[in-house]
Amino acid sequence: MALIVQKYGGTSVSSTERIKNVAQRVARFKAQGHQVVVVVSAMSGETNRLIGLAKGIQSNPDPRELDVLVATGEQVTIALLSMALMEMGLKAKSYTGAQVRILTDDAHTKARILSIDEENLRRDLNAGHVVVVAGFQGVDEKGNITTLGRGGSDTTGVALAAALKADECQIYTDVDGVYTTDPRIVPEARKLKTITFEEMLEMASLGSKVLQIRSVEFAGKYKVKLRVLSSFEEEGEGTLITFEEEAMEQPIISGIAFNRDEAKVTVLGVPDRPGIAYAILGPVADANIDVDMIIQNVGADSTTDFTFTVHRNEFTKALGILKTVQGSIGAREVKGDDKIAKVSLVGVGMRSHSGIASSMFKTLAAEGINIQMISTSEIKISVVIDEKYLELAVRVLHKAFDLEQAA
Amino acid sequence: MALIVQKYGGTSVSSTERIKNVAQRVARFKAQGHQVVVVVSAMSGETNRLIGLAKGIQSNPDPRELDVLVATGEQVTIALLSMALMEMGLKAKSYTGAQVRILTDDAHTKARILSIDEENLRRDLNAGHVVVVAGFQGVDEKGNITTLGRGGSDTTGVALAAALKADECQIYTDVDGVYTTDPRIVPEARKLKTITFEEMLEMASLGSKVLQIRSVEFAGKYKVKLRVLSSFEEEGEGTLITFEEEAMEQPIISGIAFNRDEAKVTVLGVPDRPGIAYAILGPVADANIDVDMIIQNVGADSTTDFTFTVHRNEFTKALGILKTVQGSIGAREVKGDDKIAKVSLVGVGMRSHSGIASSMFKTLAAEGINIQMISTSEIKISVVIDEKYLELAVRVLHKAFDLEQAA
Repeated sequence: MALIVQKYGGTSVSSTERIKNVAQRVARFKAQGHQVVVVVSAMSGETNRLIGLAKGIQSNPDPRELDVLVATGEQVTIALLSMALMEMGLKAKSYTGAQVRILTDDAHTKARILSIDEENLRRDLNAGHVVVVAGFQGVDEKGNITTLGRGGSDTTGVALAAALKADECQIYTDVDGVYTTDPRIVPEARKLKTITFEEMLEMASLGSKVLQIRSVEFAGKYKVKLRVLSSFEEEGEGTLITFEEEAMEQPIISGIAFNRDEAKVTVLGVPDRPGIAYAILGPVADANIDVDMIIQNVGADSTTDFTFTVHRNEFTKALGILKTVQGSIGAREVKGDDKIAKVSLVGVGMRSHSGIASSMFKTLAAEGINIQMISTSEIKISVVIDEKYLELAVRVLHKAFDLEQAA
Repeated sequence: MALIVQKYGGTSVSSTERIKNVAQRVARFKAQGHQVVVVVSAMSGETNRLIGLAKGIQSNPDPRELDVLVATGEQVTIALLSMALMEMGLKAKSYTGAQVRILTDDAHTKARILSIDEENLRRDLNAGHVVVVAGFQGVDEKGNITTLGRGGSDTTGVALAAALKADECQIYTDVDGVYTTDPRIVPEARKLKTITFEEMLEMASLGSKVLQIRSVEFAGKYKVKLRVLSSFEEEGEGTLITFEEEAMEQPIISGIAFNRDEAKVTVLGVPDRPGIAYAILGPVADANIDVDMIIQNVGADSTTDFTFTVHRNEFTKALGILKTVQGSIGAREVKGDDKIAKVSLVGVGMRSHSGIASSMFKTLAAEGINIQMISTSEIKISVVIDEKYLELAVRVLHKAFDLEQAA
């Protein structure tokens, strides 16, 4: 007998029919003798409907009241799922975030979980109940309703699994696991049976939108065994996210992540002196623009070239800021490009293997793909290329590193 | 400066536009220097939509989970109204029933209020906030969400007014006050400036569906000054519900109530012996059928005739029960009629005036309307007549008692 936390997203509970399907899946786990805690999101579309109502009244809705409003979405789902479980003859009980007492800070619309009272849930589980908890929401110390921000239901699931010391946290979604890359670009992309937390973090932040990144961090921190599964398939073991020490033998590369959300800004011919990076990036940070990759190269004539990437939505703003400070920092030229893409190889195995970077560069060169920027970490190599080569680059790298073969 | 509790029903908050209108009305009271607590219902149609979802899953939804579900309706409205008030530059704060801590018993879907913590509300009011409270809902001692049953938002308004010792509780609805009778039947029906609690209770229970009867009882018990107003008119003072001792001079008759929801069952020729009423009504009560009027007449031949009325929906069931017990109670015949209507004169003034009943009977006789049953209380005379004479009876009585004239 195990204690399992299952989280179902909005598309898995988008109608009464689908809610009944979720109840059937839960019933199968109960029939196997497991204790089950279910975390649910709002029915898909509901959160957007509620935000639409709010915006019909306040263009910039008050955060406290917005949380009161959108928290109703999950509250509807927990009641309906509990009814569906009872209709199948199971004992079930719903909990809002406040009823569990998922205590958060008071940062409305993006609150962080501080603690969870698991006592009542455990009592209900021991009495044979399926416990159904509203994802995405909590309560601050003063009793105000808070929400964890979009995707926060994953975090609720992982946090509950940590608090209850659950044997596994299963995240049911509309994909059946984590793939070596996006199957829409590489049809041979293969579902991974396991992936490490570090790799998952790199994959998630780079655009493989399977799990909310905060929930992965949370799971890593509290050693929660996390599994991604499809809520629309009866069979399948999904992808288990492992701790590195558990992994028997890691493949060198686990997957290829990519995104085309970025743009780059280059400052050419800046005097090479201390403080120049701050002089360039300070004004950008002051404008609340997040910077991703940063590269600085010293040139021959005691000047330096400086390049960074920002989200494409903020490209014009960032470029404008740099043009206004160009004179004061003594730069020769400021220019930008928003037709770029980032491609990354991710794998903990590359720590103990040399030559991965050079293989990657050789593969791209053989296709005539020019590399504009390079950035590396212990388990990731990222390159920025012309956007038009993105699909080609992902395909040839997937093949070059034999990712279609099971490791 | 006064402290006013205002309650707005579902049609008053049925769209974001109407919610903005409510905010404007609240703002006018604030501008006059008053402190305002607003109690709101769910947007009209929302409660039925949620119940529809529940019934798509459980034909007889679990009461605890049904309360979790439908309580979201008012939660949506409090958030939206608070936003609308802020958009007008006012300070506002929403409270669910649980956040106020409107403590109720644990009778899900028909809970009763036990106590209200008014401390936080008072602190917010003193800090200049408009306090917006979800009607219809509370929380039991264990933290379960409860609801007060349909129309319970009126009760929430009155209970808050009592707890806060408010100067007035204003119930905004889609009618502009209490009338002498239904204006759809008697166009000359007149809006009453005042009506006593006792009269209001008789009017409400008889079918003048302006206020939920529980809220009127509550207001009477806690001496809350209650006023019924239209939420769709700018002007107008509505109808004030007074305590009898405040009323200067009461008219003899305040209004005429009626309903056609009832049916009558008659048991003829029952042996006239002790225990016979119980033998007849016991099986009906056991079947959870509510009985309204009961009349027993002793006949000449040591038998008695027994007639009672039930809701028309339960007529067939009640008749069936009586036919099965007919033999054991020794009745000659059991028959029924579901084409009846009840018409009632209501007025505290009739206590000190004789001859009201005979005037009523004379008026009906002059129109050839036969009276089938009569029942009287201190401030009410009810007759049961053939349903087809209902409108005629109400019109001639309204005229005979000069109700179109202001008292």
